[in-house]
Amino acid sequence: MNPLNPVEFRRQGHMVIDFLADYYENIEKYPVKSQVKPGYLFQSSPDCAPMYPEPIEAILKDVQKDIIPGITHWQSPNFFAYFASSANTASFLGEMLLNGFNVVGFNWASSPAATELEILVMEWLLKLLQLPQSFSTSSDHGGGVLLGTTCEAFVCTLLAAKEKTLDQIGREKTEKLAVYCSDQTHFSFQKSAKIVGIKPQNVRQVVTTRSTNFELSPESLDEMIKRDIEDGLIPIYLCATVGTTSTTAVDPLGTLCEVASKYNMWVHVDAAYAGSACICPEFRHFLDGVEGASSFSFNAHKWLLTNLACCCLWVKDKSSFTKPLSTTSELIANKTTESGKVVDYKDWQISLARRFQALKLWMVLRSYGTIALREYIRKHVKMAKDFEGLVNMDSRFEIMARRYFSMVCFRVSPYAISQHHDNDHEANEFNQMLLELVNATGRVYMTHSVVGGVYVIRFAVGATLTEDRHVKMAWELVQGQATSLLGTPTPNSASNVQPSKQIEGSIST
Amino acid sequence: MNPLNPVEFRRQGHMVIDFLADYYENIEKYPVKSQVKPGYLFQSSPDCAPMYPEPIEAILKDVQKDIIPGITHWQSPNFFAYFASSANTASFLGEMLLNGFNVVGFNWASSPAATELEILVMEWLLKLLQLPQSFSTSSDHGGGVLLGTTCEAFVCTLLAAKEKTLDQIGREKTEKLAVYCSDQTHFSFQKSAKIVGIKPQNVRQVVTTRSTNFELSPESLDEMIKRDIEDGLIPIYLCATVGTTSTTAVDPLGTLCEVASKYNMWVHVDAAYAGSACICPEFRHFLDGVEGASSFSFNAHKWLLTNLACCCLWVKDKSSFTKPLSTTSELIANKTTESGKVVDYKDWQISLARRFQALKLWMVLRSYGTIALREYIRKHVKMAKDFEGLVNMDSRFEIMARRYFSMVCFRVSPYAISQHHDNDHEANEFNQMLLELVNATGRVYMTHSVVGGVYVIRFAVGATLTEDRHVKMAWELVQGQATSLLGTPTPNSASNVQPSKQIEGSIST
Repeated sequence: MNPLNPVEFRRQGHMVIDFLADYYENIEKYPVKSQVKPGYLFQSSPDCAPMYPEPIEAILKDVQKDIIPGITHWQSPNFFAYFASSANTASFLGEMLLNGFNVVGFNWASSPAATELEILVMEWLLKLLQLPQSFSTSSDHGGGVLLGTTCEAFVCTLLAAKEKTLDQIGREKTEKLAVYCSDQTHFSFQKSAKIVGIKPQNVRQVVTTRSTNFELSPESLDEMIKRDIEDGLIPIYLCATVGTTSTTAVDPLGTLCEVASKYNMWVHVDAAYAGSACICPEFRHFLDGVEGASSFSFNAHKWLLTNLACCCLWVKDKSSFTKPLSTTSELIANKTTESGKVVDYKDWQISLARRFQALKLWMVLRSYGTIALREYIRKHVKMAKDFEGLVNMDSRFEIMARRYFSMVCFRVSPYAISQHHDNDHEANEFNQMLLELVNATGRVYMTHSVVGGVYVIRFAVGATLTEDRHVKMAWELVQGQATSLLGTPTPNSASNVQPSKQIEGSIST
Repeated sequence: MNPLNPVEFRRQGHMVIDFLADYYENIEKYPVKSQVKPGYLFQSSPDCAPMYPEPIEAILKDVQKDIIPGITHWQSPNFFAYFASSANTASFLGEMLLNGFNVVGFNWASSPAATELEILVMEWLLKLLQLPQSFSTSSDHGGGVLLGTTCEAFVCTLLAAKEKTLDQIGREKTEKLAVYCSDQTHFSFQKSAKIVGIKPQNVRQVVTTRSTNFELSPESLDEMIKRDIEDGLIPIYLCATVGTTSTTAVDPLGTLCEVASKYNMWVHVDAAYAGSACICPEFRHFLDGVEGASSFSFNAHKWLLTNLACCCLWVKDKSSFTKPLSTTSELIANKTTESGKVVDYKDWQISLARRFQALKLWMVLRSYGTIALREYIRKHVKMAKDFEGLVNMDSRFEIMARRYFSMVCFRVSPYAISQHHDNDHEANEFNQMLLELVNATGRVYMTHSVVGGVYVIRFAVGATLTEDRHVKMAWELVQGQATSLLGTPTPNSASNVQPSKQIEGSIST
């Protein structure tokens, strides 16, 4: 057996390329959300590994028969759930190359290209996003790194802030350390804080409101911190978000950083979803104020056409950042590390081993070019805006949060559901039922959130293959299901529109 | 622009398959260890991303010209450094499929196949490794999960042990928690403990010695714990290793678990490298006693023909394990999760997002079959044993640690170097110089360790393409370079052999 026989590698590799190309060609034929029941796979699968080799032909048949029905098709053009994961050719080729080389780039010496291409790509992205020079690897103190996920960025930056503080005030104060976020901050933040040993009660959430677009209020933050200090807590970290998961809300970075700086806190800006949009000049202003932050991250695997998982993180003070993550061992000792002239990325992440992720981002940035990437973002924003327009045309529906990017939060209004015009509870149940009916058709997939006690349907544009016609079809499907549920005909003329339903301040970009 | 145009996907995909097949065909032509100097890539690369798309042909040319020279060729048959990362066709195809689908399998509902195939594959592996049923997902309390790296396994299990204890004794005791390992435990363990908030001084290392094959002594552990308890510490966790990184030493699991159980400690067994070997019945005894452990992990990406990164972890008490890692949010709330009938793997790892890793392991186990996988392991062990035999035939060299698996630790003996027969310091410098000369030829790549103050060269067999001839060539290269350095001819007959150089207890399997 030679598991890397080039002849077989070639033959089987070509087969899988064709298999996947066929998959993309047929993807609209599958129900977007998998319709299998729990345990479906165990019924058709042997309960131990085979003794003898099986041919690729048989395995691919089983992928078609057993795996594809169990997949929710994130690459379907009718996928509008969560935030999309944008598979595409260039990133796929990058994954092929990095898997082909399969180098373990824990430090510069283990594969110099892995480290240097990562530095290069992070510099390219820094310029694309117009991030401050203080975050650049070419600056004295800053630098960028590719992690897997935002959770890793949370863990590593929280750890840096924690250790930096404890070094100054003594380890016995651990229980007093407090970190800040809003009730719209991603739910993984709480878990990340727990991982690094922040007392769960000391993860302090500022409450947001719909009237202020679910933004984290600097005034409320300041008040909360003041009270906490009086209560003996030590504020060390603030997580601000550009593009929250529930409604894509944008926290005011500039003023938040000003508040945090009064208390010498680390500020992390989580732009997991919306960061990608900021490569377009017209969206860049959402990052204004980031120069006051200590770190910034976004997920290229969400909206910058990069395969899972790829989180781009920059820090301003690499010394504080890498100190608690650094390791030394004779096993990987080498003269280049000792020279101090190179970056060893093992000291920038939780794990030692790391994949050659930069290759896929490099392929994406080169294959598409900046102009096409911007057009790609704009196309998605335009489709979301169009969807928002359609919602506004139907008086039974209402937009539930200001739309900034490519996601629309909406619901059937309580007014359309019953006489109890302001009964959010009833509306919540109705909209949940509506969403279930819509998804059960298999023709689209959307998900929901609950903000300020209100159940909202999230329509998140972002799948690579989505076109105008899919957006239109999705809306008609929602309308049709709503009509069935409400038992009234679909309003089909603009005369039914109640302009007041357009939320104040929705941007037209 | 359609970044998932099936026609272009097919055309470019086929090109990259051919590119990589050519790479494997030519891999022996490249210097194994990259010979570039720091900063090499920045000289040839533009300092910002291109505005316009570039054709795949131009990009692949740059991969050949700029990336390949900067890669250390982990897939070269002449790669004997660290522990190998075993690229291969089946796992590569699995990566293609998982990247093609690009699902984000954080919970069952987000893509049922991702969760169910992971459970299935972990059950297959559990049986292959004859792990106790108490680790099985089909048991009441246990379960298996695919993580990226052993560091993640450390962090998650340490967190479980810590939180379980603090729930019982109160959070204010955090500073008293102590965790145990040996001086041969992987250096990432210390960092993982720091991440979860274990006081660095409370990561307690038992010293090992060459005379006991660098094993963690249960008696020494017991004594250390007793003293620590007297000093007010609270022991919560022991990391035992099967196949340490420096010498592939094997800790005595059974007696270590007995000691740990006296103190109600969590025992994690780290078999990152050697776990794969235990699919062969003749090596399975190295895991004897694992039934007393709380968790067990090994890296399929090291020696089980699986692409980076893939760490397989089983735990006996999934409730303690998942409690601190669990998250809930309306954003991902769904009826299947609420039913309690499914596993949501987001609660088994640090991050929320996760790749469909099970696909590649499933491809490997099916494509090769158990019998061929065992043969593959045995072939590597046989090559290492042959290398060990060659070392033993040359009286200038000595084996420095008992060989258990596919790695040989050796050096030029102080006796061969100078009159100062027991001068380890001089021998260390000599062997370091020898290794540098050997690697500088570009024809092979080996790395080193320092154990008990002694510099040893590690010859780790594990690359997928390695054959007998590569092992023989590597040895002749080492001999030749040693001869140049020593200024004496290579002994070429068995009459020079000093049988005493064969280390006591080296196994013949």
